[in-house]
Amino acid sequence: MSEPWLSGRAAIVGIGNTAFGKRGEFAERGTFALAVEAIAKACADAGISPQQVDGWASYSDDAATPAALAPAFGCERVRYAGMAWGGGGAGMGGAFLNASMAVATGQADYVVVHRSICQAGGSRFGQALARSDLSASMPEISFTAPFGQLSAAHMFALASRRHMHRFGTSEEQFAEVSINARLMAANNPVARFRDPISVEDHHASRMIADPLRLLDCCMESDVAGAVVVTSAERARDCARDPVYIAAAAMGAPYRWAMGMMGGGNMSDDDFASAGQRTVAEDLYRQSGLGPDDVDVAMIYDHFTPMVLMGLEDFGFCGKGESGDFVQEGRIRLDGALPVNTHGGNLAEVYAHGITHVHEAVRQLRGCANNQVEDARVSLVVGGSGPTPTSAVMLRSES
Amino acid sequence: MSEPWLSGRAAIVGIGNTAFGKRGEFAERGTFALAVEAIAKACADAGISPQQVDGWASYSDDAATPAALAPAFGCERVRYAGMAWGGGGAGMGGAFLNASMAVATGQADYVVVHRSICQAGGSRFGQALARSDLSASMPEISFTAPFGQLSAAHMFALASRRHMHRFGTSEEQFAEVSINARLMAANNPVARFRDPISVEDHHASRMIADPLRLLDCCMESDVAGAVVVTSAERARDCARDPVYIAAAAMGAPYRWAMGMMGGGNMSDDDFASAGQRTVAEDLYRQSGLGPDDVDVAMIYDHFTPMVLMGLEDFGFCGKGESGDFVQEGRIRLDGALPVNTHGGNLAEVYAHGITHVHEAVRQLRGCANNQVEDARVSLVVGGSGPTPTSAVMLRSES
Repeated sequence: MSEPWLSGRAAIVGIGNTAFGKRGEFAERGTFALAVEAIAKACADAGISPQQVDGWASYSDDAATPAALAPAFGCERVRYAGMAWGGGGAGMGGAFLNASMAVATGQADYVVVHRSICQAGGSRFGQALARSDLSASMPEISFTAPFGQLSAAHMFALASRRHMHRFGTSEEQFAEVSINARLMAANNPVARFRDPISVEDHHASRMIADPLRLLDCCMESDVAGAVVVTSAERARDCARDPVYIAAAAMGAPYRWAMGMMGGGNMSDDDFASAGQRTVAEDLYRQSGLGPDDVDVAMIYDHFTPMVLMGLEDFGFCGKGESGDFVQEGRIRLDGALPVNTHGGNLAEVYAHGITHVHEAVRQLRGCANNQVEDARVSLVVGGSGPTPTSAVMLRSES
Repeated sequence: MSEPWLSGRAAIVGIGNTAFGKRGEFAERGTFALAVEAIAKACADAGISPQQVDGWASYSDDAATPAALAPAFGCERVRYAGMAWGGGGAGMGGAFLNASMAVATGQADYVVVHRSICQAGGSRFGQALARSDLSASMPEISFTAPFGQLSAAHMFALASRRHMHRFGTSEEQFAEVSINARLMAANNPVARFRDPISVEDHHASRMIADPLRLLDCCMESDVAGAVVVTSAERARDCARDPVYIAAAAMGAPYRWAMGMMGGGNMSDDDFASAGQRTVAEDLYRQSGLGPDDVDVAMIYDHFTPMVLMGLEDFGFCGKGESGDFVQEGRIRLDGALPVNTHGGNLAEVYAHGITHVHEAVRQLRGCANNQVEDARVSLVVGGSGPTPTSAVMLRSES
């Protein structure tokens, strides 16, 4: 591999989002109108006109396309429009990678990364798997759907159970991720779930896909978020202090690609993981930073066990040790590695990771609700699976 | 804009394709199996194992995803997976841009660009526009579908008629594009339509969307194509002489984004165009090359008038002069600018532009069926609309 040429050459200069609605709340407005609002706010935050945007980057097959967004804003021209492959929040870091490459290599001046979700629109995931056109594009589903593996919860339940079996990871340890999210959200006025929960509340919540209970699963919501990315040089002329992209990486280890969908010849360590071992390796190599440098981490929390396995994949603890790591309070605000200080997918809003990036930016700007003192480096980890997953490393200094 | 950092840092080292089937011929094999075959052949041509591929780039929402492709080949890891936004062949150059950026910045070693099509599968374009989920992702359609603008031919007919009205462009001049394609295909043993046609044949073919006749429209087909892209350094160790990517660019001028779908405040010049004025500008700036440097051009030929307008957008002739340009024989094999020497979408196969890249590579390797003597620079222009469109400039020397 080449030298980490990209590191620090792109920066985040603006963030914006819509209100956080529950599933279906903004169905009439629709994903396009939500995207427009979030993008306009991100541009205002950056101190630029949306007409200056000449690049677009999204993921998870976002329905708000540049073909419609650019004319909506009267953009002078479109120079870049890239989509990161991968479903759910897996492509979040990939979108930032595309945006970073586009501004750093001079393809575009201002690239907006955006994600817009109305979860009551279109077909739902569990239902969608029965659709013939989905099995055409995801042939691996033919091998797992007949056995009842029909939703994300079903898929991640397998890796979660395997982790419990091999390492003795407990439901109490899963619960801690959810409890922490609610504690963070309590101090976030716009978070959707701000009431604290106990271990007992967690255990009493209904089973969704054994071992995943309701309080292990993220919420559903209607929301859009956007981020303005530009070159490091141009960033210094923007309204806000730049937050530099130290690295963005996508990745999947051998056969993880089909991992969550049923496995197949991958190593047992990779199966009982978030599939992020190689993303971590590439992200650290490219940023020149390691786990010890991270002041605050946003780890995609669609299901609580995937936060635990993400902590292992990114080297914050050894393989199989994440349960103890969180049980000792380390991911709390006063812990060694505060995680998801906004409340995350579990308690703030479910926006496929774009609001995780927003929170990292606030931490590095020093204006988070749950501010980590002197935070200079923040890791943002995208969703685990389907392939490839991705992550971004942000830092406040160039 | 920054300096053209990317130019020459990435190269094409392998090309591969399946047999060229008519629409529905490979429906039972499906797009995924076709993609695997084309990718395996492209890797063989490059002298690498498919297991070394660590990046994936496609466009037009290709159904063969890296999540399935990487495990199919047993790839050690996935490092990049990017999709260029835009429908049809519009994103072709965008996929090469993503691949180029990924290898040049050190994100990945070998990125495969691929496109796989089975046109009898899924819904067809004219029908698809009536689907509610499509109008959700393409809101502009709500303004045009009620007036009967339901297919690509309908959309491009408007710009074509406008060009005729303003510049006196004639059906004879449209026909020349199709006649030229058949002449080229006659010498291409794998081309699907190798019989020559006359102006009379063109005029006698049935009207599809006035002024576009059957022989103005590309064929439909089942086919996959792939290209291996790597860094210029690594390319020198591959089996074949590298073909360097002098530039790859995406683009759309003001409001062109919705242009083909119904216009709206764009300039008359941009309306009666292929929407590629800004792509051309960026591609020439980044490559340091101009129209006079191009030895042979592949111009996306979904509809004959779009080749004419592409010639204007890329500066091979003045605005409105493309009709005379082709009528004087300039795009024929013995002309000043041989165009689509493989037969293109009109006569070889319809593969969303990936086979146009293959032909440019063969020309620069010196092994094309209709070899242009001493060809050193080849321009490959992606499909006109929907936004953004894109192009690639290739050269044989680093």
